[in-house]
Amino acid sequence: MPPGTNPLLDDRDVDFVLHEVLDVTALTRLPYFADHDRDTFDLVIGGARRFARDVLFDTYRPLDEAPPRLVDGRILVHPKLREVFPALLGLDLIAAPRPVAVGGQQLPLTVFNAAVAYLMAANLGVYGYLGLTQGAAHLIEAFGDDALRATYLARMYAGTWTGTMALTEPQAGSSLADVQTTATPTADGHYLIRGNKIFISGGDHDLADNVVHLTLARIAGAPPGTRGISLFCVPRLRPEGGALVDNDVATAGMIHKVGWKGLPSLALNYGERDDCRGWLVGEPHRGLAYMFQMMNEARLMVGLNGVATASVAYHEAVAYARTRPQGRPAGAKDPTAPPVPIVAHADVRRMLLRQKAIVEGGLGLIVRCCWYADVAGHGDPAIDLGVDPAQAALLLDLLTPVAKSFPAEKGFEANALAVQIHGGYGYSSEYLPEAWLRDQKLNSIHEGTTGIHALDLLGRRALARGGASLQALGAAIAATCARARAAGVDAAWIAEVERAVGVVGALTAEVAARGVAGDAEAMLLHASDYLDLFSTVVVAWQWLDQAAAAREGLARGGAAAARAGFYRGKLAAAQYWIRTELPRIDHLAHLCRSGEDSYGALDPDWL
Amino acid sequence: MPPGTNPLLDDRDVDFVLHEVLDVTALTRLPYFADHDRDTFDLVIGGARRFARDVLFDTYRPLDEAPPRLVDGRILVHPKLREVFPALLGLDLIAAPRPVAVGGQQLPLTVFNAAVAYLMAANLGVYGYLGLTQGAAHLIEAFGDDALRATYLARMYAGTWTGTMALTEPQAGSSLADVQTTATPTADGHYLIRGNKIFISGGDHDLADNVVHLTLARIAGAPPGTRGISLFCVPRLRPEGGALVDNDVATAGMIHKVGWKGLPSLALNYGERDDCRGWLVGEPHRGLAYMFQMMNEARLMVGLNGVATASVAYHEAVAYARTRPQGRPAGAKDPTAPPVPIVAHADVRRMLLRQKAIVEGGLGLIVRCCWYADVAGHGDPAIDLGVDPAQAALLLDLLTPVAKSFPAEKGFEANALAVQIHGGYGYSSEYLPEAWLRDQKLNSIHEGTTGIHALDLLGRRALARGGASLQALGAAIAATCARARAAGVDAAWIAEVERAVGVVGALTAEVAARGVAGDAEAMLLHASDYLDLFSTVVVAWQWLDQAAAAREGLARGGAAAARAGFYRGKLAAAQYWIRTELPRIDHLAHLCRSGEDSYGALDPDWL
Repeated sequence: MPPGTNPLLDDRDVDFVLHEVLDVTALTRLPYFADHDRDTFDLVIGGARRFARDVLFDTYRPLDEAPPRLVDGRILVHPKLREVFPALLGLDLIAAPRPVAVGGQQLPLTVFNAAVAYLMAANLGVYGYLGLTQGAAHLIEAFGDDALRATYLARMYAGTWTGTMALTEPQAGSSLADVQTTATPTADGHYLIRGNKIFISGGDHDLADNVVHLTLARIAGAPPGTRGISLFCVPRLRPEGGALVDNDVATAGMIHKVGWKGLPSLALNYGERDDCRGWLVGEPHRGLAYMFQMMNEARLMVGLNGVATASVAYHEAVAYARTRPQGRPAGAKDPTAPPVPIVAHADVRRMLLRQKAIVEGGLGLIVRCCWYADVAGHGDPAIDLGVDPAQAALLLDLLTPVAKSFPAEKGFEANALAVQIHGGYGYSSEYLPEAWLRDQKLNSIHEGTTGIHALDLLGRRALARGGASLQALGAAIAATCARARAAGVDAAWIAEVERAVGVVGALTAEVAARGVAGDAEAMLLHASDYLDLFSTVVVAWQWLDQAAAAREGLARGGAAAARAGFYRGKLAAAQYWIRTELPRIDHLAHLCRSGEDSYGALDPDWL
Repeated sequence: MPPGTNPLLDDRDVDFVLHEVLDVTALTRLPYFADHDRDTFDLVIGGARRFARDVLFDTYRPLDEAPPRLVDGRILVHPKLREVFPALLGLDLIAAPRPVAVGGQQLPLTVFNAAVAYLMAANLGVYGYLGLTQGAAHLIEAFGDDALRATYLARMYAGTWTGTMALTEPQAGSSLADVQTTATPTADGHYLIRGNKIFISGGDHDLADNVVHLTLARIAGAPPGTRGISLFCVPRLRPEGGALVDNDVATAGMIHKVGWKGLPSLALNYGERDDCRGWLVGEPHRGLAYMFQMMNEARLMVGLNGVATASVAYHEAVAYARTRPQGRPAGAKDPTAPPVPIVAHADVRRMLLRQKAIVEGGLGLIVRCCWYADVAGHGDPAIDLGVDPAQAALLLDLLTPVAKSFPAEKGFEANALAVQIHGGYGYSSEYLPEAWLRDQKLNSIHEGTTGIHALDLLGRRALARGGASLQALGAAIAATCARARAAGVDAAWIAEVERAVGVVGALTAEVAARGVAGDAEAMLLHASDYLDLFSTVVVAWQWLDQAAAAREGLARGGAAAARAGFYRGKLAAAQYWIRTELPRIDHLAHLCRSGEDSYGALDPDWL
């Protein structure tokens, strides 16, 4: 695709998901969002979109080729990044969803995430600085005392100080129960922090005046396990007597990530000189609980990373397939006929439609989760938005593992298809699809591996509150089925989705019974298959809703008639997902039910 | 895994496939292989294995980090490669399967490929020089005249001159019908070659005295399409008056591949000065037919690349999972209990067993195809080896698209799982799994993309000779089922495989009928699903055979009893494949049958 012509995301699709599948302006009926309207939404999205296309995307290749450098203990980023970063901050996005009282704009997450998806698609590593800072500042906003809020909040929400989430330790990985960093109280109110963290994204750089590490550590005498972990605010430079003083957080090394090259991933040593001060955020021992309150949003962000990375590659592949001439149609006999563009080959269209189904189905899911987050956070049972706040909270909780892991897993497959469509060129770093494939792989690992999310979904969320979440999901899908029926969507598709909801319900109850009977191992043995099944159904639901909205658009005629091709594409992708992917659930359900034990009973010595 | 301890392939598995699943020494009953015995086989495999582990594997990381450089029009490889290359040639492998008369050892391909699999696993780019030279020299041996054979054969089989396969052109890609390089006859017997080739692996380097390009070109006046393409021998330096003279093949550029960093991929310009001489190999216009006679072996080599690349990563992942402590078993309540190695988590064992099933199932398939190649090439209907030469030829032809594409597609998945098991470390270039993931991606693209092989399988090979190939496959699988029954393999597994063979037969007939009725597009619409289905069945067959051999080993007791764990692992992987993967075929068959048309009917403008 010629430089500068990749749309990153399809604007028609973003509008469609926000305004035709959902009705995002209905959120302005809630007091928190009341100062907004369609115009302010379009302004935010348009601003991010233009910056992403015109400025940020151009940084992608240079930053991928020349990652940050560790020089004399400090991380130096690419000069191009230093050049564009102020304008990125100028979009004023970090605090956008937060209250006006703390410098935000009270923007719905639904709109915010539609906007930042363009930035992620343009350069997801660079967006990382903003996303991490938002998460870190939000922790201080939500749980910090007045002193912490006064010192950090405005600076972080403006991005002049950036933030990190410092959870992982070298020996513990996913097992946060094993965090060993210590915090020793002092008479001055702060703690002395000692320990090592690893994989700390944005842990140092020369883009901002300071970096603030929201750090998990254990206060001496704390209970073992996850209930003894506290949250600390540990700046790289601490304010002291009107100056910023080195706070003894040292960069021990840089991990050479295979993608996300704009954002350094560091090993940090706290307290090498016994002079690393941390300030407790909230109450002792509640650090992990605080983190997890933010985690749903962080996980939606990872899901959106996955969607955005698959999206930019999908658009590159579509453009390539439309313009690259090669071969002739099956059955063509005349070798002197001119070659056709490869999109004329059915198998190339298969690869493209599969990418579209993953990208746009994934975007629909994330945007819906954001909608639930907005309603759960700011809704009012008296203001009818089709789902009440309590239900929205249940749905957000239930869908988060899917929203995080589906784009990572299927997005990786989509990114590999974009490489494949480019043929030998796709295997070269002269073309970008291989870089996006590298970027995508991280999303199945960070913020909880896919395996962890599978355990979380089946072991906790699907069964939460006596099955109320699953009931809420059934009700939401039933509403979509009713809409699809009214819109004239193929009755067989609706029946397939309805049947799938029944499969999920019956299977969950059956598998849960094993856990109730005390056999957690048996219950969770096929957690990954369960996640695959559950995700496939949830995405089929998105596609049924999008099919309904497309049918409504086709029926409207008028201005919408100009979009007939777009709507037809939606119906094709919906058909693909419901006919080709959804039927896989029966086999997956059988595996979960039967407890197929080939790996369950496997002795590691047999490998 | 500590440096130097990755076994690359499991020696027990190589022995098992060669001597327990198959009986490779039975090949020595054929005159061509009569000078060999188990000892000479072990010698060849042992030599390659030692060199791979002790020398070649150490070159992997430095070569991956510092690819060849283009300096003043010449390609310079890594000094480490120059250092080890003579010893690699010293293994005397290039001509090993070829007749003694041309400098070979008449080694069965079955044994040869088991040996070189270690080299590929250690550094597949470096093995590429040998594999390409073997293919190029074999073309000259098979189709060249005496003068060409006298000039090139000994040097290429010794590796002092290396070879390339120069097919692809920038504008034509997979469509060889569109080759535009021209060959103009001269009065002196040679042709003048003009044109551009791209993606020419090993197209230049400083490892050997000369590079010989087996080049497809069109003689003026040739018929259009694939029937007008001739094969030429075009050396970089041509022998002239006792010296080597520049032959006007210029390196126009180097493609920056994302893997295979030891082997440069080049764009070549022929005849920039109108002084590029080519010598016709065989008869005019038969070049593509010659190429395709060699292509089955080249494709088995690509399949073995895929297996080897997935294998080395699998072994790295097993070692990591056994030694990396993290987390506690599901349901464990005590956070002070020491963490367990991650292999104790069922989902990690799932990922490992899936890799094992792909790697060892793939190796079994490739080795079996090599066995068929040996029997087809050198067999005698009077010497019973369980399959007669004509049947073996049919089976080799039928299975080649699967042997080429299955390891590429599922191997990529296996390589991604090896990254996933390494967690955040897997996403860093401090660890090797990410490099193998990059390497693997090429295998679905070169030597025919997976989509092309799908069309080839369904459009040609499955229907060849009135279904005789498919009947031969049915007979071969039936023999395995009988063996499995006698060995006491779970009857349900056997029944599943037998049922699957029935599905393949019925489906192929049904889909073929659409082609017979004149609708090639409809017949081939789900070629990719058909390839997936067919491959899944073929690999299930390998696993049933391996399960039978494992049961036989367990029953033998004695020395075999020491291998009980190994055999149990085989049974677990067989169970996994037959229970978890094989049942997917029903849905795939349904898609092929129903002609699900979401992408078939898709207008490209709807994307």
